[in-house]
Amino acid sequence: MTVLILTCEEDVTADMVVARLHETGTPVMRLDPADLPGKAVLSAEYAHGDFDGHLSVNGHVLSTGGLRSVWVRRPGEPAAHAAHPSPWLTAETRQALYGMLHCVPTRWMNHPRSAEQARLKPTQLRVAHLSGFAVPPTVFTTSPRLAQQFAEEHRDVVVKSASGPPPGEPGLALPTTLIGPDADFSAVAAGPALLQRYVPKRADIRLTCVGTRLFAARKRAEPGQVDGRFGDTEHAWEAAAVPERIGRAVHEYLSLAQLAYAALDFAEDEDGVWWFLECNQGGQFGFVELETGQPISEAVAQWLAAPRIPAQRSTGSAARRGAGPS
Amino acid sequence: MTVLILTCEEDVTADMVVARLHETGTPVMRLDPADLPGKAVLSAEYAHGDFDGHLSVNGHVLSTGGLRSVWVRRPGEPAAHAAHPSPWLTAETRQALYGMLHCVPTRWMNHPRSAEQARLKPTQLRVAHLSGFAVPPTVFTTSPRLAQQFAEEHRDVVVKSASGPPPGEPGLALPTTLIGPDADFSAVAAGPALLQRYVPKRADIRLTCVGTRLFAARKRAEPGQVDGRFGDTEHAWEAAAVPERIGRAVHEYLSLAQLAYAALDFAEDEDGVWWFLECNQGGQFGFVELETGQPISEAVAQWLAAPRIPAQRSTGSAARRGAGPS
Repeated sequence: MTVLILTCEEDVTADMVVARLHETGTPVMRLDPADLPGKAVLSAEYAHGDFDGHLSVNGHVLSTGGLRSVWVRRPGEPAAHAAHPSPWLTAETRQALYGMLHCVPTRWMNHPRSAEQARLKPTQLRVAHLSGFAVPPTVFTTSPRLAQQFAEEHRDVVVKSASGPPPGEPGLALPTTLIGPDADFSAVAAGPALLQRYVPKRADIRLTCVGTRLFAARKRAEPGQVDGRFGDTEHAWEAAAVPERIGRAVHEYLSLAQLAYAALDFAEDEDGVWWFLECNQGGQFGFVELETGQPISEAVAQWLAAPRIPAQRSTGSAARRGAGPS
Repeated sequence: MTVLILTCEEDVTADMVVARLHETGTPVMRLDPADLPGKAVLSAEYAHGDFDGHLSVNGHVLSTGGLRSVWVRRPGEPAAHAAHPSPWLTAETRQALYGMLHCVPTRWMNHPRSAEQARLKPTQLRVAHLSGFAVPPTVFTTSPRLAQQFAEEHRDVVVKSASGPPPGEPGLALPTTLIGPDADFSAVAAGPALLQRYVPKRADIRLTCVGTRLFAARKRAEPGQVDGRFGDTEHAWEAAAVPERIGRAVHEYLSLAQLAYAALDFAEDEDGVWWFLECNQGGQFGFVELETGQPISEAVAQWLAAPRIPAQRSTGSAARRGAGPS
């Protein structure tokens, strides 16, 4: 029973997990969808009411009947490395690969269906509210008047991007920025703005969730610091305890969002309250593990290596013919 | 309680449904996400553990608390009509619009999460198998050898696209094509091929499903005709009865795929068996209604106008403050 890891070639976080899986002798196939077709070969056959799929990478063959779990880490665009790439070839290859994998009743970290919805920040805030987290008042709006009203009501507010850096420019920095009610809000009409009440914080919290296992890390903030990702600080990430109330809320969040993995960001205020900022369903954990020594990659490996769920009458059956392409 | 229709400006199928909704006095808001921001204004506020969202189009305001249902017909790309469109503006606007709508416990035709997965053709075939449909043997492969083996085993096979016409060229015709085992399969290595056993058919069947209501239409095929969408024929679509076994399978399919609407295509063979070919979760129905007189747009309107589901503890609550932006 093999763990399938979908990620690009250079991914040290995946390397850490692969090393743990090798230590326990768990078979692993690592595939960048960008290498399909080419380095990788795919075949999925539907006949006689049954289904049989295979993936082959460098001569190593994985039958979908032997698929233990799928980790969607940082997969490339399907067919991106093809000799003649095109949007149509990408669409056809995505159909073949993900369409085949969705036929298998396997465990996903995270299922693409859940991942897509989990990326929507307005939905994150609603789920966080319902799960019992403290959430700073927030508005998404294209109305300059409503943006200004919000800033007047909450005084110190931050503005940030909902979707992250522009597509194709992942390195571009878009720091969360503090503004006041006197700002010029007219540009809000040209694109939705995300305004949030500023939380004066004594620390940033990164809570990494792997199934039911939680790893919290705290980094002290400089007074008045707004975005912990930018600006020099002498503080490092340190392991922290997870308050019981937070633990309950996290499990509720993961259940509502149907996620097996998430990295949650909080601002800890002077009273010790953890304010929910966002949920990164594909968030990094390598830097936390390196600084705190928390065994996160081991936890991910253990989750991926756990026994496969019993056969269910969903979109696949666990009983399969074992024959690979001969 | 208002029905929200997400579609582009020129959409006669949506026009037909809007006319039916007007006849029954059901409030409707029609929005093309491409017009946001600009013609449309959005605001979603998260405060005090509650959530309140609004959409405004041409001065007509819809509160999410008054949202009855959402019909995702043919929506444009968010922000596509903006004064300065960009991939980033589209990403931010998609976050704001769909993130807000996903906070509301409303009825969707179809929910984007289900729609995305329902488009994957390999998954369609697996769900069809599990639902009890007859499915022609099919293979998706990037292996020329396996493609040839499949053609030798099944003799008359068709090759077709899994994802449809290339993105950006929706008008390009990619007819399903009959080939034999003597074909040259070497190009299969360059891109996944979809090969399917040819079904000699006496008719094409289009089965339009609206909730639990089914509308079947039959069009007689010319002898040897492969793709019913191409080639002149004197036959028209005629209303047909739905065999009981098919009815049961359809309801199972829609339940497994979590779809409220689907247009299923079948090939009817000489023995009267309906062979499942594909499921179009956003398939057209206007041409069927015009040729057969079946009241499909009325059924869609009735589904959309049905009372809202009771409040659930999902990602939203039905009890809302009713105030719009004043």
